[in-house]
Amino acid sequence: MTASGFDATVLTLYPELFPGPLGVALSGKALETGLWGLKVVDIRHFAHDKHRSVDDTPFGGGAGMVMRADVLGPAIDANHDGAAPLIYFSPRGRLMDQALVEEVRDAGGATLVCGRFEGVDERVLEARPVMEVSLGDFVLSGGEFAAFALLDAVVRLLPGVAGNAESLAEESFADGLLEYPQYTRPREWEGKNPPEVLLSGDHARIRTWRKAEAERITRERRPDLWRRYTSEEGTEQ
Amino acid sequence: MTASGFDATVLTLYPELFPGPLGVALSGKALETGLWGLKVVDIRHFAHDKHRSVDDTPFGGGAGMVMRADVLGPAIDANHDGAAPLIYFSPRGRLMDQALVEEVRDAGGATLVCGRFEGVDERVLEARPVMEVSLGDFVLSGGEFAAFALLDAVVRLLPGVAGNAESLAEESFADGLLEYPQYTRPREWEGKNPPEVLLSGDHARIRTWRKAEAERITRERRPDLWRRYTSEEGTEQ
Repeated sequence: MTASGFDATVLTLYPELFPGPLGVALSGKALETGLWGLKVVDIRHFAHDKHRSVDDTPFGGGAGMVMRADVLGPAIDANHDGAAPLIYFSPRGRLMDQALVEEVRDAGGATLVCGRFEGVDERVLEARPVMEVSLGDFVLSGGEFAAFALLDAVVRLLPGVAGNAESLAEESFADGLLEYPQYTRPREWEGKNPPEVLLSGDHARIRTWRKAEAERITRERRPDLWRRYTSEEGTEQ
Repeated sequence: MTASGFDATVLTLYPELFPGPLGVALSGKALETGLWGLKVVDIRHFAHDKHRSVDDTPFGGGAGMVMRADVLGPAIDANHDGAAPLIYFSPRGRLMDQALVEEVRDAGGATLVCGRFEGVDERVLEARPVMEVSLGDFVLSGGEFAAFALLDAVVRLLPGVAGNAESLAEESFADGLLEYPQYTRPREWEGKNPPEVLLSGDHARIRTWRKAEAERITRERRPDLWRRYTSEEGTEQ
């Protein structure tokens, strides 16, 4: 365990991007009050030739630039605490999901390497204990956008940040289902009313309705999650 | 087609988050030079009661707050151009992937609704032509982080932004495969050398090696993408 609930180290060529959106609202308040910590490292400080170059053209030709092993390697070595996960964001990585978010949270910290250009020299990924993580099957201009999402998702789970454990327990993925529909005032809007059961005050009926809706939405929209959910239900019985 | 290559409208409770990371580097330069446009709308301006409240407790009880239909509905109506996709970020949505990024790019613009709290009143999602989009199977404190990722992914595809069509054509997902390993100078690093073929100057062999590596990595790491790739290859033959 660390002094704060979570210590993030971010390696980037754009240190001015941080904390950025993580400095506002929930995560920003938590950063100010020390519930988590953020160290931002400019990879360029580890460039050592006279041009301070961090990248070069790929061996074998082709478009774009590749981040040099002899720059990124030392940047990692100087900043990575061996016990924490060392994550490099790449479309080739393990898809980020709530299980990964919780693993990272449980580790108490992480070092996040944000690539740009065509990628990084493969030898760094082999020579250091790098976990490649993908935000999804799309291409970003840099890993910084994945770092924002991962850190936001982690920080909101830290004790004292969201302030509402019940809310965390009921949200999407907490039980393997997507969330049921929500309604609030006004009671009538554009001639439409919320489902009568939600106004009934009958908590058992409300619970049953919400579970059935969460199951229906998951089944209709995400057959993959639904299969996992039903096979796990089966195991429990 | 619009004046710029892409016109984004973002509805948020945290307008100060924008352009944020989108105002830096590739997307920032493109924003400055008018290759894309960004309009940011504070949803709170559409609150109309004396407390300017945008959310309220859910009917039926439970934790958290739900965004009101009579605030978000008018905010959408006042800002959404009917021809563009109207996207609400939610874990219940269609998973964002490169195909969706390209659809949004091709539409020439989009209105992005960033939720906070437990979600929004379901009646808005039914009464307006909302496409729910999920950044992935994890929970964020707000849709803003998904908006950053989507806009970054879209903007880098706009003509004149990345400046290198060849690079775009070779990257992950362009052909249904993850990207092959990359290497750059120095030639030797920590006693390791790049694969000999990349130094051979034999472009046909390099192409063959890279394709085989892209296929191997996709097969090993993402059986789901591999199955889609091999079934499409089969169709073409």
